[in-house]
Amino acid sequence: MSIQHLDSGDILSQAVTHGDTVYLCGLTATDREKDVAAQTEEVLAKIDERLASCGTDKSKLISATIYLTDIELKPAMNEAWKAWLGDLNRPTRTCIGGVELEPGVLVEITSTAAK
Amino acid sequence: MSIQHLDSGDILSQAVTHGDTVYLCGLTATDREKDVAAQTEEVLAKIDERLASCGTDKSKLISATIYLTDIELKPAMNEAWKAWLGDLNRPTRTCIGGVELEPGVLVEITSTAAK
Amino acid sequence: MSIQHLDSGDILSQAVTHGDTVYLCGLTATDREKDVAAQTEEVLAKIDERLASCGTDKSKLISATIYLTDIELKPAMNEAWKAWLGDLNRPTRTCIGGVELEPGVLVEITSTAAK
Repeated sequence: MSIQHLDSGDILSQAVTHGDTVYLCGLTATDREKDVAAQTEEVLAKIDERLASCGTDKSKLISATIYLTDIELKPAMNEAWKAWLGDLNRPTRTCIGGVELEPGVLVEITSTAAK
Repeated sequence: MSIQHLDSGDILSQAVTHGDTVYLCGLTATDREKDVAAQTEEVLAKIDERLASCGTDKSKLISATIYLTDIELKPAMNEAWKAWLGDLNRPTRTCIGGVELEPGVLVEITSTAAK
Repeated sequence: MSIQHLDSGDILSQAVTHGDTVYLCGLTATDREKDVAAQTEEVLAKIDERLASCGTDKSKLISATIYLTDIELKPAMNEAWKAWLGDLNRPTRTCIGGVELEPGVLVEITSTAAK
């Protein structure tokens, strides 16, 4: 089965579609001066945009892995997460803290969705 | 292709089934006073239970990612892992340590299975 | 749908094929005296070998998750990554640092590919 790449760059593609599954790269906020809530909102908006480019949307999310530099940031991230999903069914999720991300990045989210 | 959610809650679903693939959320022990071996046994029992709810079982595991707060816990976790799988074929696996999980949690396991 | 295991061992399989998706285990260098660039090259060669055993190759990579003990190792890892992929389309990718791996291991890569 063939695969489709979205914005294949120097290092990675923003998304790869394989059959009816869409895989997104780990996404981070571009504005790294913001707090974790605002960074999360920016990441979630990027997920919306990438999913739209692949012909799907957040109602079809399958799974997400969330990486935080500090597990103490989880409650603030969760608020942005819940607001974003609203009444939609939730994907599966794993959230870990205490990892090193790019300078200034507080949260990175990797996700998959159905198409 | 439609997706099915198992116990979609405030933050996440316990499992999402997409076609013939089942994705489980990151699972942790409820009793966080226990050592890593006992926590791992509890997590593996939860995986059994979630897979059964999705109409599959551990013989069809595809992959697992295991997060430990301390890589030194890996040998004790591995003993519980091997006992649980017995003579079954193994899934692929990745195990990393040194991450921050919820207070008292020593091990978290994310997995996928065929249906 | 049945699944096929490649080299199911004591702890894990080197790869599991489910339908037209191949999942590889987290791979590390065997020679752990080497620097991160050389360790990455060894890991990428192992990915080539495992994919070939499953009837596919790096042109069909879907996603990769890269774990580094130190995020400062990322640029050197990236050089090996880019050289390996050449002109091929990129998979999606997530790279996190600051995790504990096996003694001497600087980089571990988990990946999936289409078949």
